[in-house]
Amino acid sequence: MDKSIVVVGSVAFDSIETVHGKTEQTLGGSAVYFSLASSAFTNVKLVGVAGEDFGAENIAKLRAHKIDLEGLEIIKKGKTFHWHGSYDKDYNEALTKKTELNVFETFDPQLPLSYRNTPNIFLANIDPDLQMRVLDQIKKPRLIACDTMNFWITGKKKALLKLLKRVHILFINEMEARMLTGEHNLIKAGHMVLQMGPEVVIVKRGASGATLFTGKERITLPALPVEDVVDPTGAGDSFGGGFMGYISTVKNWRSLNEIKKAMAYGTVISSFNVENFSVSSIYRLKKSAIEKRFKKYTASLKIC
Amino acid sequence: MDKSIVVVGSVAFDSIETVHGKTEQTLGGSAVYFSLASSAFTNVKLVGVAGEDFGAENIAKLRAHKIDLEGLEIIKKGKTFHWHGSYDKDYNEALTKKTELNVFETFDPQLPLSYRNTPNIFLANIDPDLQMRVLDQIKKPRLIACDTMNFWITGKKKALLKLLKRVHILFINEMEARMLTGEHNLIKAGHMVLQMGPEVVIVKRGASGATLFTGKERITLPALPVEDVVDPTGAGDSFGGGFMGYISTVKNWRSLNEIKKAMAYGTVISSFNVENFSVSSIYRLKKSAIEKRFKKYTASLKIC
Repeated sequence: MDKSIVVVGSVAFDSIETVHGKTEQTLGGSAVYFSLASSAFTNVKLVGVAGEDFGAENIAKLRAHKIDLEGLEIIKKGKTFHWHGSYDKDYNEALTKKTELNVFETFDPQLPLSYRNTPNIFLANIDPDLQMRVLDQIKKPRLIACDTMNFWITGKKKALLKLLKRVHILFINEMEARMLTGEHNLIKAGHMVLQMGPEVVIVKRGASGATLFTGKERITLPALPVEDVVDPTGAGDSFGGGFMGYISTVKNWRSLNEIKKAMAYGTVISSFNVENFSVSSIYRLKKSAIEKRFKKYTASLKIC
Repeated sequence: MDKSIVVVGSVAFDSIETVHGKTEQTLGGSAVYFSLASSAFTNVKLVGVAGEDFGAENIAKLRAHKIDLEGLEIIKKGKTFHWHGSYDKDYNEALTKKTELNVFETFDPQLPLSYRNTPNIFLANIDPDLQMRVLDQIKKPRLIACDTMNFWITGKKKALLKLLKRVHILFINEMEARMLTGEHNLIKAGHMVLQMGPEVVIVKRGASGATLFTGKERITLPALPVEDVVDPTGAGDSFGGGFMGYISTVKNWRSLNEIKKAMAYGTVISSFNVENFSVSSIYRLKKSAIEKRFKKYTASLKIC
């Protein structure tokens, strides 16, 4: 069974300020967080674009995690997408200070031939038209998951709704679920999103954990509190990476228990991710540390 | 084994406004919510004060749940404590519009002789000096739990700290834990509260569930989302009532699994409570409905 994943998303430099300090021009982007998180479980093939400034060092960092970069286009003389943002002490929401799209502005994802038979797809948060174009290049997808954000919900709703009809799993945060449905209540919004097409909806709820919706089930798993939230950037993408990394390796991804395990892995990796700036936690993360925290987390939820 | 509980707290009339409507002069108060929630599990002996306006109907309502009212003092010609408050649509915090203490202002809790050998005690959120006075009247307590609020943390901190040294379990919400410790981070604050005396600290976190702290363990259980949060009043006291009601019936309350079961019962009863105004949900609540939701909740957390 081929367990590999194709991910398309942003490859970026981030400059981030939190109460714990700041960082400038460090490795970031949804495809990067996702790839590093899921590479603990399976082979990941990245589709993205970067400028010449991305540099050999960052390429090497991703290669060290065996991430396939054949689909990473490097634009000569181009500049990599740059996001500058900050958070308040409650980390409720990212405040964008500056976004320089640079080479990302004209991104037209082309999948290498070697990617086109990949069974598992993660369409990270980019323009739904581009997400669709990537999907069209995959021959026989087994599992298609996607993420989105407020920007596309308001600006490209029609394209997004079209995409959702082709998606098995949607990852969405609580605010976005409200925005997409016009419904404030979590449960009602979750069920309305299911009506839009996905078989499974995972609502990411920050400190309140994540709530799973399927036609039959509704399950909330808690977040793992950490002693110091240093930088929440990439929390959602590393959750998605842990989730998809695990679920890509199982025979029946529709098994409720496997979906819960995937949510637990997502929760665990996301909890590591926020403990340090940028990708530094998940970059160093060992499988044994993931398993240890996973065991503790799942044991803590067992009530006999 | 005597499984009964003494609870001391407020007996009130509440006037509440939420996005779902409003209610006037309905039965409320921490001791009332707690008693109704815990009466599903064990015998409850209430200590409180009300005015003559409290009326035979409300007395009958509590008696219907077999709540012992020998410790409920009715002040002739007195008026019952009245709280008038409202919530916004996110139910993050209660906004107090008016508080009329009335007979509660001079409350001096006296325990009937028949209460003084009760093994389990819940000191609901009242002046810590009064909580202490109640505790002093109990002969050989097996399990002492208490709750508090921002008003006492700022206004009566010394008395509260003295009380905490005598308490086994403290229920506190996240904002109050921060206020009590001066520490913003949940984990650090939880451990600091443990240092103040309680063996077990349960931080109530609203939509984010509840986090348990003991010297050895730290466990977060999720809240149960509901389709319509109609009125969150009493969510904390019904959580405490479900928790204490269950734990009062077990042999070893220090067993981690029993504490988790108690948290689960608290979560379940609190989820019922917020589905209707005032005590109307928990007043009608059948044990079979509690058990059904409890089973579903604990099964949803099982990851094999």
